[in-house]
Amino acid sequence: MMRVLRRLLIGKPLHNRELAHEKLPKWKALSIFSSDALSSVAYGPEQIMLALVAVPSLVAYGFMGPVAIGILSLLAIVVLSYVQVAKANPEGGGAYTVAKKNLGKMPALVAAGSVFADYVLTAAVSVSAGTAAIVSAFPALAGREVTIDVLVLFAILMLINLRGVRESSNAFVIPTYAFLFGIIILIVIGIWKSVTAPYLLPPESLARQQLDWAMLFVILRAFANGCSSMTGVEAIADSVPMFRKPEARNAAITTYWMAGILGFMFLGITYLVMHYHILPIAEVTAMSQLAEEIFGRSAAYYYIQITTMLVLYLAGNTAYNGLPVLLSIVAKDGYMPRYLATRGERLTFSNGIILLTVAAALLIIVFQGNTEHLISLYAIGVFISFTIAQSSMVVHWNRERGKGWQVRALLNGIGATTTGLVVLIITITKFLYGAWIILLFIPIMIYIFTAIRGHYNSIADQLHLPEECYEKGAATFPEGKHIVIVPVSTTTRVVYETIKYAKMIGDNILAVHVSNNEETTKKVVEKWKLWDPGIELIVIRSPYRLLMRPLLHFIEKKEREKGPDDYITVIIPEFETRKSWHRILHNQTGWFLRNTLIWRENVIVTTVPYHLKE
Amino acid sequence: MMRVLRRLLIGKPLHNRELAHEKLPKWKALSIFSSDALSSVAYGPEQIMLALVAVPSLVAYGFMGPVAIGILSLLAIVVLSYVQVAKANPEGGGAYTVAKKNLGKMPALVAAGSVFADYVLTAAVSVSAGTAAIVSAFPALAGREVTIDVLVLFAILMLINLRGVRESSNAFVIPTYAFLFGIIILIVIGIWKSVTAPYLLPPESLARQQLDWAMLFVILRAFANGCSSMTGVEAIADSVPMFRKPEARNAAITTYWMAGILGFMFLGITYLVMHYHILPIAEVTAMSQLAEEIFGRSAAYYYIQITTMLVLYLAGNTAYNGLPVLLSIVAKDGYMPRYLATRGERLTFSNGIILLTVAAALLIIVFQGNTEHLISLYAIGVFISFTIAQSSMVVHWNRERGKGWQVRALLNGIGATTTGLVVLIITITKFLYGAWIILLFIPIMIYIFTAIRGHYNSIADQLHLPEECYEKGAATFPEGKHIVIVPVSTTTRVVYETIKYAKMIGDNILAVHVSNNEETTKKVVEKWKLWDPGIELIVIRSPYRLLMRPLLHFIEKKEREKGPDDYITVIIPEFETRKSWHRILHNQTGWFLRNTLIWRENVIVTTVPYHLKE
Repeated sequence: MMRVLRRLLIGKPLHNRELAHEKLPKWKALSIFSSDALSSVAYGPEQIMLALVAVPSLVAYGFMGPVAIGILSLLAIVVLSYVQVAKANPEGGGAYTVAKKNLGKMPALVAAGSVFADYVLTAAVSVSAGTAAIVSAFPALAGREVTIDVLVLFAILMLINLRGVRESSNAFVIPTYAFLFGIIILIVIGIWKSVTAPYLLPPESLARQQLDWAMLFVILRAFANGCSSMTGVEAIADSVPMFRKPEARNAAITTYWMAGILGFMFLGITYLVMHYHILPIAEVTAMSQLAEEIFGRSAAYYYIQITTMLVLYLAGNTAYNGLPVLLSIVAKDGYMPRYLATRGERLTFSNGIILLTVAAALLIIVFQGNTEHLISLYAIGVFISFTIAQSSMVVHWNRERGKGWQVRALLNGIGATTTGLVVLIITITKFLYGAWIILLFIPIMIYIFTAIRGHYNSIADQLHLPEECYEKGAATFPEGKHIVIVPVSTTTRVVYETIKYAKMIGDNILAVHVSNNEETTKKVVEKWKLWDPGIELIVIRSPYRLLMRPLLHFIEKKEREKGPDDYITVIIPEFETRKSWHRILHNQTGWFLRNTLIWRENVIVTTVPYHLKE
Repeated sequence: MMRVLRRLLIGKPLHNRELAHEKLPKWKALSIFSSDALSSVAYGPEQIMLALVAVPSLVAYGFMGPVAIGILSLLAIVVLSYVQVAKANPEGGGAYTVAKKNLGKMPALVAAGSVFADYVLTAAVSVSAGTAAIVSAFPALAGREVTIDVLVLFAILMLINLRGVRESSNAFVIPTYAFLFGIIILIVIGIWKSVTAPYLLPPESLARQQLDWAMLFVILRAFANGCSSMTGVEAIADSVPMFRKPEARNAAITTYWMAGILGFMFLGITYLVMHYHILPIAEVTAMSQLAEEIFGRSAAYYYIQITTMLVLYLAGNTAYNGLPVLLSIVAKDGYMPRYLATRGERLTFSNGIILLTVAAALLIIVFQGNTEHLISLYAIGVFISFTIAQSSMVVHWNRERGKGWQVRALLNGIGATTTGLVVLIITITKFLYGAWIILLFIPIMIYIFTAIRGHYNSIADQLHLPEECYEKGAATFPEGKHIVIVPVSTTTRVVYETIKYAKMIGDNILAVHVSNNEETTKKVVEKWKLWDPGIELIVIRSPYRLLMRPLLHFIEKKEREKGPDDYITVIIPEFETRKSWHRILHNQTGWFLRNTLIWRENVIVTTVPYHLKE
């Protein structure tokens, strides 16, 4: 049953040789690797607005423009820095790999921890933002957001990724371009209308506020919120080997394209949000308000909402492309459980996929699918990994000292400093809003990473066969005695089978009967004599009617007497009932005995299976 | 930890010779065996009243007297019949034993099923009635009845009975006599007051109603309710061996005494309930209203309530004396799981005690501790077992044909007919009020009884060693080959230990390596050659990266090839991690393999335990 269901949902196992390595043209790569970055315009401008309108009487709303400009400049710096990363790492690999190569173990683990958090949040934020887009269009769905989110995670993203899909599939290309097309039209028409139509009552005065410290704090928090738009920018640089030749150059060009589109859309949406004075409404996104303002509830409005949803779910999927691979790299280095490093039946890293789904679903459930709260956690992890990656590049250029290395080092140095500063800004302005969770999570992950690595190292040492074993060849095994103990309650077919097997595996057999009833014992001893299997039956009296303890005492005594190369095997005569409910009708002494003895180092427990027919 | 707690609560194990057989004087036996019957006056009259006042405008209330008289006559018949049972069964034993001896298997099982229900209900009804008594006195406890009931069951009755107590303990004697004393004083003073005080407005007219069919039905239901007062009457007859010599005579005398006291109290309370026009009040018992009416809220009132509570909890305890013993008898006959038949560490039938506690607690929780609803289920099981016991006696006398057997048979015949009639009345008048539950429960229990017996019989047949084995003596065992399979992932200390053990138990050893990665396999094969343990390493390729399936296929192939007397042993090299959380860091192939192979008849699975030190 389970197997049929599994086949149906996941598909049949794939052969090793089916692991494909495909090369992507730029136009495909753009859509595939940028869905995360580009889709963030669906929530980024809204986040800036939310931070600013939180101030009483909306005094800070007018600062939206400057904040957007600040974020655009930051985007330019980050993109330029990442083009360097792409050029220097044609083999791909994210912040963890780059940091391990250039900065050493600790920064690499910090990067791993923050990227781990980042990917889980990408899945959680994108899926819940996608759901928010569709709920805005169809208010009847309101209140069921968490259910929809969890369904999308488990029934769509997890299953698709467990099956394994070619990243080059058109299913990933079309929604991104459809989304781009819609948003660009929206911006163009929106701006056209804003220019031609009579100007909406402009609360100009609002932006003319005194800039004091409290206001600066609010503006910085708006900036920190807006940084969530920049998550996913690193995706192209991490995937250089997927590009057609010349890989690094094509990746760089694609990155510029992506940054240009992202910048245009971000600026456009922000301008429109300001122009139309979009303010937060429960269960309706800013994008939805904007689209309604510009298109009315027309087909165009629904087009925007549906493509937004699709591209956001697709963005959630990028976490599935990234995290399982990262986990497998970290697991190969011994910092995560080994089974995260092996490909499953369908050549996907199934354990990592399941881990990601469960973690993202938990986040969504805990935060009740509230995009705003999730985004509070989001940017800090991303910018920590940005900072580490850029710093690694500085070390890298300094080490290589190729042509023009100073310029490159300077570029990455500026990138590292800026993103480091952003980490600081986010930490300060968003500490109580969730940043503390990530700042707590990263050290915990580092502790787990090192604990796991320590355990694997210790295991390897303990299991290692000493070198001399290999040197001398023809391994020798010391000779020892073999004592076989068979507990006997009465003479049955099971005991017959057990004694037969015992005679096969050893010469020194002890049949032991624990007596808690004189009469029964007398009968058993008589039967044993009649049957005469050639082994003496040792009787242990148990006046307290216990069965296990006297037997354990007997075995312990034998353990103390045995030599270091002797073995004691206890064979428990047991039968398997045909129906599992039958088992409750029999006492579980055998089961208890096995589970007690299995913890002893010097005793081997086994059972000769005897299956009842009826 | 668990063991210390257990010692503290239950006490240390007891030696077989500590099983005591004490003989009781009549005055002690009366209090010990009658607490169930006598305490039922605390709810019996109230039940009659409840059935009658359910009719609109209280028209039926005046029929309380006639109903009580009917119940008293029934009591007389049942008592006379049970004195016969006591005389004929000096070895004791309840309806089940008597029916098995005289009527055969089916009636005995019906009796066992109904007595089972009866005992569980005795515990549930008595405990919740006891709690109702104390809640009436201390209204602050209202709303916590179910919690109190469950606490009394688990923390008092179960623990005391798991420890094991001498039934002769004065702890059981004092409350019963204290209760008797209090109730008799209550009745005497109440009657005195009723005679001397001015008569309370007598709604005489109420009782002068036309007796139509609907009314008859109500009266019969009141009668059925009142029959709950008669539960526990059989206790003395079931326990004849506990009496001093001449046992049967002393038991008979005690039964008369008990019946006399019960009759007097029942009549007295019923009279007073009628006289003082006691009507149902939520969370206050009729007894409590009565005591308050007669004594006011004086010390005497609290005395009545507290002794009532004590005697009812004690009545609950009689189920603990009865059911585990009954279950042990039924289990010895193979109708219940065998472990119900063996005495635990403290010589008590611990499994039966736990079963009873859980069942009674479930009943109380399902019925929310509502005494009235529980009592609806109560009487029918009791009267079924009465009927079966009396019918058995008719057969018994007819078989024995001793002096005056006709009179005795007639007496029991009248008993059987009357109680059978009562079963009919209860079934009809209380069917929808819960009787159907018991009438469904009994056939289900019979099905379970026979299924268990059938299973045990079939097992015994299958496990039986053929007679000829005993006849010829000096058992012979056919010679066979022994194939030992050791799955090897790489050469480690665990594999070393496993191969060492394998060499000890067999000559035909197959080391098998499943390869899901060419490079690793090459290394393993090289190391194996260097180490050279004298066994060839068989390599199985697994292009689908599965480990279990190729190995299972290999084992299955060996299974098909082997002769009927050959054995295949699979030794799984596995290590035990020192901390249990470490286990999640390792793949569970060994565990899966063991759990898959354990179901195969022809393969023995074992593990040489290797415990990691760190």
